[in-house]
Amino acid sequence: MSYFDAASGAPLHPVARQALMASLDEGWADPTRLYREGRKARLLLDAAREAAAEAIGCRADELVFTSSGTRAVHTGVAGALAGRRRIGRHLIVSSVEHSSVLHSAEAFEADGGTVTQVPVNRAGAVQPSGYGAALRPDTALACLQSANHEVGTVQPVAEVAEVCRAAGVPLLVDAAQSLGWEPVEGDWSLLTAGAHKWGGPSGVGLLVVRKGVRFAAQGPVDERESGRAPGFENIPAIVAAAASLRAVRAEAAQEAVRLRELTERIRARVPRLVPDVEVVGDPERRLPGIVTFSCLYVDGEALLHELDRQGFSVSSGSSCTSSTLTPSHVLRAMGVLSEGNVRVSLPMGTAEEDVERFLAVLPGAVAGVREKLGAPTAAATAAGPAELVVDSLGKRCPIPVIELAKVFGQVPVGGTIRVLSDDEAARLDIPAWCEMRGQEYVGEEPAEQGTAYVVRRVS
Amino acid sequence: MSYFDAASGAPLHPVARQALMASLDEGWADPTRLYREGRKARLLLDAAREAAAEAIGCRADELVFTSSGTRAVHTGVAGALAGRRRIGRHLIVSSVEHSSVLHSAEAFEADGGTVTQVPVNRAGAVQPSGYGAALRPDTALACLQSANHEVGTVQPVAEVAEVCRAAGVPLLVDAAQSLGWEPVEGDWSLLTAGAHKWGGPSGVGLLVVRKGVRFAAQGPVDERESGRAPGFENIPAIVAAAASLRAVRAEAAQEAVRLRELTERIRARVPRLVPDVEVVGDPERRLPGIVTFSCLYVDGEALLHELDRQGFSVSSGSSCTSSTLTPSHVLRAMGVLSEGNVRVSLPMGTAEEDVERFLAVLPGAVAGVREKLGAPTAAATAAGPAELVVDSLGKRCPIPVIELAKVFGQVPVGGTIRVLSDDEAARLDIPAWCEMRGQEYVGEEPAEQGTAYVVRRVS
Repeated sequence: MSYFDAASGAPLHPVARQALMASLDEGWADPTRLYREGRKARLLLDAAREAAAEAIGCRADELVFTSSGTRAVHTGVAGALAGRRRIGRHLIVSSVEHSSVLHSAEAFEADGGTVTQVPVNRAGAVQPSGYGAALRPDTALACLQSANHEVGTVQPVAEVAEVCRAAGVPLLVDAAQSLGWEPVEGDWSLLTAGAHKWGGPSGVGLLVVRKGVRFAAQGPVDERESGRAPGFENIPAIVAAAASLRAVRAEAAQEAVRLRELTERIRARVPRLVPDVEVVGDPERRLPGIVTFSCLYVDGEALLHELDRQGFSVSSGSSCTSSTLTPSHVLRAMGVLSEGNVRVSLPMGTAEEDVERFLAVLPGAVAGVREKLGAPTAAATAAGPAELVVDSLGKRCPIPVIELAKVFGQVPVGGTIRVLSDDEAARLDIPAWCEMRGQEYVGEEPAEQGTAYVVRRVS
Repeated sequence: MSYFDAASGAPLHPVARQALMASLDEGWADPTRLYREGRKARLLLDAAREAAAEAIGCRADELVFTSSGTRAVHTGVAGALAGRRRIGRHLIVSSVEHSSVLHSAEAFEADGGTVTQVPVNRAGAVQPSGYGAALRPDTALACLQSANHEVGTVQPVAEVAEVCRAAGVPLLVDAAQSLGWEPVEGDWSLLTAGAHKWGGPSGVGLLVVRKGVRFAAQGPVDERESGRAPGFENIPAIVAAAASLRAVRAEAAQEAVRLRELTERIRARVPRLVPDVEVVGDPERRLPGIVTFSCLYVDGEALLHELDRQGFSVSSGSSCTSSTLTPSHVLRAMGVLSEGNVRVSLPMGTAEEDVERFLAVLPGAVAGVREKLGAPTAAATAAGPAELVVDSLGKRCPIPVIELAKVFGQVPVGGTIRVLSDDEAARLDIPAWCEMRGQEYVGEEPAEQGTAYVVRRVS
């Protein structure tokens, strides 16, 4: 099996395992106790905090350990907002943040706050000026990921931090995807991450609150972790998290070069090996290990299943692989094709031959799924009526796009096709198809049922 | 070293270690993913949930795993209160709950709710009628621990659940101290626990919400653990928690008998070995492994330090061992002596000879601390004035009681002594001293500085 989903979670790093084992015997007791076992536990906890703080580039007393990266985000966002409640109740986030940030923003809105989403370009990156435009006198907090978890695009964190700093607004950086690679540059105020993304154990998140940043922890009082992370500290896991962060950082520079070359291979070769593919995300400013592409006329779940059967574990932002039946909010915000979406995120140490095998297997896997779905293989040329209606109501992605493509050749140049669909993915995928095909997307109109997506043939 | 602080946290059970090791390789991936590693993780998680649910006596879909027992309490209390917000905003707790429950209650009060604390008797037990009297038409939730964490007293949970059930009010049971021993009896509605109390790993709490109980999870939305415990599941630790719960349960009945005999030995012999000791907690309805006593004229921290030096790790509810400088709320609610407080909580498997060695060491340790503090060894007999003032302002527990005892013999029978103290512990310890000595505690009065505690000599 080749596990290519490191962005979801990495297998345990050998150093993490070793540290976990060692500290199970020394770190199980309550570190607030004065007796021998408690003192040992406290020493381990303190040493882990020092080590992790050094790798992050913060003071040890600015760092607390939470139970997950998600929890660090929830706590960090809520605490920073509450700490600056008197300033105002406005929050800025980018439109491609991790769901933990967006859900924190929703909870804040439900509680009466106001949220501004900063848009991204087609590569998935925000512009610092977007944050500048969103800042208001009542802005309590801004959030920006260090790099995107679905497409790997690196965000201009230092520049955005500068814009926020000039306005006196703290910036929280969700560094979940990048902290294993390098410290976050720039003058940020809060930082969050989760250890299992870099090969640390599950159950450990990190929350940094810089000295001087106003912060009011929410929820019931608890004395542990400076009052910011209630509950008995999971010291063996914390020790393993800190040790593995140091370990992956020692390998990071060299491994980044190697993985970047491997993902570059995928970026370059997939469009040549597989027809009708869009590689998404910034080609340059990106994480070393992530590459994401979408395949026209492909059902994401079927493709993942086929790749799994052939020994590859990848994930997808396609709607049909999620419980919500809507495409990933990241792909939507970027305005790129969502159907047949595949995210390959290589763990450190991925072998070159596994990537080559993936490239060998992928074309057949995509072709097989397309064949089952009856995807168009060549455009029809018969000239039919100048206006055509495709009724795809009740059909799920990628069927609406397949049905559009099948009849497209029947209308003459200048003619239009109205695709009726009640699948949320069509809103993204029909315009994306037009862009890939060089055809005109006219727009959408409400229909008796669902929505009509109007396309004009221009060539 | 003899570790006698199992009520704080138990060393990792061998079965937990084994399960943790085994599932580090199989359970690290995201259980929501469809690929092989994700499916394996999901299988482990489902099996752990089934096993733990069986041990608790609930349905698997009623149980979620949180990151700690404290987190389970915070989530359970907040969710149950929110779920019944329309009924009202009144919460009932006992006065001897774990701080996680009391802090949840404080947070609820800060948010506009009302809290009633049900008192306990001198043994630390609530009366079911106390809950009956506290119930109101707007009561949203009642909370009761299954057994007390500081003195081991077992609470009448089934009877209180019955009283609550009759009023249509859900009862949340904090089963942290007892779940390793046995399931919680009675018709409770919610239950919480933490795995590291029974020898499971740190980082795993349990929250059970019975079907039909209204529950509205608070905080940002997250799809994991039925929306009740955000963040990536810590599956290796969850597997270890479930496996060790089954393992300790298999040993529990036999081990309970053995530990009960050992703690009974301590209960019976400490008062004979050490003068001026009060053993606290219910002598019959109690956990097998916990025994707690307080020693007059003893500084708890000094005693713990001395016991640690001699190889015993115990904890204390004395004010001088806590950061808050107030005695444990449990001892205060019970109205028992807090100075020189020692809680012995034996882990499963404690050897008889370790307990015997503790009993051999304790008298010398107590005597040593008393000697350093200049504690009275025999009552003075000289008859002095009929009224005496002892100025203990600025002195910490146990000095005020020592100074009282030293001069007590100087006043004639019928005479009074006013002890001036600004130490919070005096409020508890001076009345307790009177009760132990068979003298009359008249009451307290505000003084120019601190408080005057008035004692009358009756014998």
